[in-house]
Amino acid sequence: MAELSRRRLLGGGAAVLGVAGIGAAGVGTGLGYAATREPEPTGGRTVAFHGVHQAGIDTEPQAFAAFVALDLRPGLDRRALVGIMKVWAEDGRRLAGGSPALGDTEPELALDPARLTVTVGFGPAVFDVAGLAAQRPEWLRPLPAFSIDRLEERWSGGDLLLQVCADDPVTVSHATRTLSKSVRSLATVRWTQRGFRNAVGTKPTGTTMRNLMGQVDGTVNPAAGSTDFDRQVWNPGTPAWLAGGTSLVLRRIRMELDTWDELDRPARELAVGRDLAAGAPLTGSRERDDPDFAATDVHGIPVIPPESHVARARPRNANEQFLRRGYNYDDPDGAGLLFAAYQADVDAQFVPVQQRLAEHDALNPWITPVGSAVFAVPPGFGPGGYPGDTLFEG
Amino acid sequence: MAELSRRRLLGGGAAVLGVAGIGAAGVGTGLGYAATREPEPTGGRTVAFHGVHQAGIDTEPQAFAAFVALDLRPGLDRRALVGIMKVWAEDGRRLAGGSPALGDTEPELALDPARLTVTVGFGPAVFDVAGLAAQRPEWLRPLPAFSIDRLEERWSGGDLLLQVCADDPVTVSHATRTLSKSVRSLATVRWTQRGFRNAVGTKPTGTTMRNLMGQVDGTVNPAAGSTDFDRQVWNPGTPAWLAGGTSLVLRRIRMELDTWDELDRPARELAVGRDLAAGAPLTGSRERDDPDFAATDVHGIPVIPPESHVARARPRNANEQFLRRGYNYDDPDGAGLLFAAYQADVDAQFVPVQQRLAEHDALNPWITPVGSAVFAVPPGFGPGGYPGDTLFEG
Repeated sequence: MAELSRRRLLGGGAAVLGVAGIGAAGVGTGLGYAATREPEPTGGRTVAFHGVHQAGIDTEPQAFAAFVALDLRPGLDRRALVGIMKVWAEDGRRLAGGSPALGDTEPELALDPARLTVTVGFGPAVFDVAGLAAQRPEWLRPLPAFSIDRLEERWSGGDLLLQVCADDPVTVSHATRTLSKSVRSLATVRWTQRGFRNAVGTKPTGTTMRNLMGQVDGTVNPAAGSTDFDRQVWNPGTPAWLAGGTSLVLRRIRMELDTWDELDRPARELAVGRDLAAGAPLTGSRERDDPDFAATDVHGIPVIPPESHVARARPRNANEQFLRRGYNYDDPDGAGLLFAAYQADVDAQFVPVQQRLAEHDALNPWITPVGSAVFAVPPGFGPGGYPGDTLFEG
Repeated sequence: MAELSRRRLLGGGAAVLGVAGIGAAGVGTGLGYAATREPEPTGGRTVAFHGVHQAGIDTEPQAFAAFVALDLRPGLDRRALVGIMKVWAEDGRRLAGGSPALGDTEPELALDPARLTVTVGFGPAVFDVAGLAAQRPEWLRPLPAFSIDRLEERWSGGDLLLQVCADDPVTVSHATRTLSKSVRSLATVRWTQRGFRNAVGTKPTGTTMRNLMGQVDGTVNPAAGSTDFDRQVWNPGTPAWLAGGTSLVLRRIRMELDTWDELDRPARELAVGRDLAAGAPLTGSRERDDPDFAATDVHGIPVIPPESHVARARPRNANEQFLRRGYNYDDPDGAGLLFAAYQADVDAQFVPVQQRLAEHDALNPWITPVGSAVFAVPPGFGPGGYPGDTLFEG
């Protein structure tokens, strides 16, 4: 009997049930939705997977993110890359819609998309492997070395990026694992960085996040759908295949919270250039008030110190703007910010700002970049397409 | 001018603002609550901090947890221990109510309690340091070594435990850091283990969690407030100071997901003894159906294999029951379950079940205990009290 049971336990082999069957069973047997008087569960909320742009960039930021960098195994060619992309297109679509991936081994964990988005990016190696070096955007290379950097290999670089965001951490965990696993014969995970914001519902939608130093973080972002957003974020087609795509700069910024805690509140506010309670510039009273960098106090001293973070980060021209869509992290190796910046052109928009901050930023003693990676983010695609189809078939 | 600003930046010293002032400013300057048409934010939800029992045990599980073990610095005495407890009582009460801790360095991060609970536990060393060795419960020692254990020091043991749970990950991060920091001259963090369940709202309240193997996990739990719950969880007063307290066994159980994925669905269900879609026992159709361990198929073979997890875990007597309140984890070192078990008596309730599972459990090839710790959880206390007051002043 024990023998038989063991055979039953281990037998069977590849009899993975049909995906539709599993999904239907998971819903049909009822997780009890109908029986409760609760508000409609939010797990079913979805974000459109197909479109002109990939989702996950102009999407109202979800509560949780995982950034996964993968390295291509040696000896691959363009066809293998396209294979990976088609798998991610198919499984991304399924998961974003609340259906299990093909061959999903934990299909019940796929049933709550919770606004899941899957965003794919390309590191520099993609273009060599594909034999398309001439198509690589000029800015797609490691950022210049900044004096403040203390970069660690384990948080830097990568050939491919998967950005997985959702309002539920179980959804993110399942989707991340499923998408990396399905291509593991072709690519290996180089690093995974997980981040969080406030849970959905904790604060009203649209509240700017706070980082773990307690600062309101991301106030100057352009509004999704605005002309500013489109101009800052979406690549106009340089090179042509990237039209409607963008770039991601991901910086892992460790916060030196123990020494930050030694600063009193006024000193913190002068370092940032904003107050901590409302996130208002020191010359204003509300978060979205424009900072007045010319304002001085009765002694003629600038109210917003020129070396403060907001003063140093202030764009010197219209190019120096980009979208911040970061996440907090709190891991055994420390706490900080996964600073995620999206822009049409890294060199024109991101680098000058970062260069200026590296040279002088009153916040620098308390923030240390320990990871850095740059990716080209191909445009969106339709049901027949996949990430990078304009590159690989262009 | 730069000189002056630098002085303004670095000057000031210890001028931490009054707590009430900061709190009021944070709310008063308006995070925009009133201006929106959204449902009331859920960040303001609170769980009572004082009571007969500590909160965080019979509390409907929050979405996020951090378990922090601390080690006492050498040379402490009972007075120092009481000092730590009084700090945690005061700051725990404030944070659970949505107010900053005393001297909170990031007071704005304290304004959304999101059902925050802070639960304190004692490791074996507490009783020696306090000169109260005779008051140590007999079961408060490392669990017996089990054959399946692959324990790592970095996830095991500890003199004190802080269990911090809330529905928001920022709240958990802030409270965890604040509470450990405020006693760092007396105790150092030994390990931190962070876990998650579904976000609030993803599924209806009361849905049993799924672990990352996809299994419904925790079905057999007693209902909070029931006679079963009270009998299983709350210590009746052995020793007397622990009346209304309990014990926590925290096991970090790594899941071998890559090999688990090689099993087909029927084999998985036979290993667990439940189906995966609904979590129903193989002899039933709904999650809460009682398993029928005597049922056989047409060949006389038990429908629920005797070596399946549910069959091996089944209590052999009324003592062998306890509360499971675990959390998923997904960290760089692997994914799995923070198995948290609460019981009046570890030796009588938890150990025999774990012993039986270690000897034979069809799930064992796919689950590896890599961390283990046992704590006595003192009873609740009133506004004038603190965790362990019945021990230290008893």
